[in-house]
Amino acid sequence: MSGKVLVIGLGPGSDAQVTPEALAAAGEASDFLGYKPYIDRLSLRPDQTAHASDNREELARARHALELAAEGKTVAVVSGGDPGVFAMAAAVCEAIEHGPAAWRELELRVVPGVTAMLAVAARIGAPLGHDFCAISLSDNLKPWELIERRLRLAAQAGFVMAFYNPISRARTWQLGRAFEILREELPASVPVVFGRAAGRADERMAVTPLGEARAEQADMATCVIVGSPETRIIERPGLDALVYSPRFARPSA
Amino acid sequence: MSGKVLVIGLGPGSDAQVTPEALAAAGEASDFLGYKPYIDRLSLRPDQTAHASDNREELARARHALELAAEGKTVAVVSGGDPGVFAMAAAVCEAIEHGPAAWRELELRVVPGVTAMLAVAARIGAPLGHDFCAISLSDNLKPWELIERRLRLAAQAGFVMAFYNPISRARTWQLGRAFEILREELPASVPVVFGRAAGRADERMAVTPLGEARAEQADMATCVIVGSPETRIIERPGLDALVYSPRFARPSA
Repeated sequence: MSGKVLVIGLGPGSDAQVTPEALAAAGEASDFLGYKPYIDRLSLRPDQTAHASDNREELARARHALELAAEGKTVAVVSGGDPGVFAMAAAVCEAIEHGPAAWRELELRVVPGVTAMLAVAARIGAPLGHDFCAISLSDNLKPWELIERRLRLAAQAGFVMAFYNPISRARTWQLGRAFEILREELPASVPVVFGRAAGRADERMAVTPLGEARAEQADMATCVIVGSPETRIIERPGLDALVYSPRFARPSA
Repeated sequence: MSGKVLVIGLGPGSDAQVTPEALAAAGEASDFLGYKPYIDRLSLRPDQTAHASDNREELARARHALELAAEGKTVAVVSGGDPGVFAMAAAVCEAIEHGPAAWRELELRVVPGVTAMLAVAARIGAPLGHDFCAISLSDNLKPWELIERRLRLAAQAGFVMAFYNPISRARTWQLGRAFEILREELPASVPVVFGRAAGRADERMAVTPLGEARAEQADMATCVIVGSPETRIIERPGLDALVYSPRFARPSA
């Protein structure tokens, strides 16, 4: 089969953070699927077709991409950030595993990108400078009890945590509940970074101690980073404070 | 003060994975510090000076960068991958916190990049498609007991794990011991991905069940990804198998 699927990560939002590899892959494709704001970031040629869709039907979009590729087309599935982190690459793999045998003969290429937590971390210092984890707070695809359990174990392990999908119109209480759980496990002084739209014109960064962190500080475009007990804040005269997690850890941690 | 420090991530190794932002930042700098192979990836102008150093003295290199910036220079500190993930951004923050007060008045800009685990994941499918953690296996800066504790808690939490610094000439037993610990906590069938030099000419990818994983499969340039019990392998006729972690999780996980 000659068709192929390219799953392309466009980075966190700024054109300056899109890799040449991602642009070259987009240049190869004839058909584009993805959340419209991501596709709009590419300047498609007249011979390239966008099949816009909303952001919620990931598996349907993955199947659509594979159907077009099975017809011989070169199909780009476009993600913000990195497509392998809570994004389309896993959905495409899932569709291949459970789809017709012919889909296993299609070329699949995943093009990595700068994922949101890296862009947010870079803007504030180095909060991911030591061992860390990334957790999706969406309970659409996993039970909330499992998320609670992961939060507690991650805190006990001393991981810095990055939360993806922290809140949405339909999921309003999960982030607040996550903060409540973490307040039982971690010191109230642990810094929480709310990084919204890092690298874009409407960027907004805030740092709040865990004891005072509120879900209302986040929206759908926010990546939330919760420090470990080792995470430090450096105040700077006339400049934003830096938040970082030291490379070393004390035996007591 | 007019000097500044730019901590720049060059991505995992291929020029096509370097962001325009990273190249622009490198273009601003007069002085470059970093492990020589990273600096060699940039084509410096005659008016730009490289201060090469070995890869082990991160804090000394960070202090050197801040000293040059305090003299008014624009200094680039160059990292492979992302500078915020087990790399130079935390070392620079650490040097600022413990250095002269004047260093807190210097501009610091961290430029994110594609970190190794994202590049390796992209090459093999989507093993980081669900909740995951990143752990440095180096016990140079933290006690080995803490690493063991984190490995067990991460396995109990159901995280996919990416290991940075899995092995070196001076640290030969840690990766093998990590596999032993994980064999006590996870099914022997869990896929382990050994991703070496992803995106470079000497790239090498291998997938082995945890029960058979050996430390000798990794070297210093390898990022090791250990799946969760949910992680799947898709065999494909005539193509490399895909490894991915589904977006959903069963309540029993």
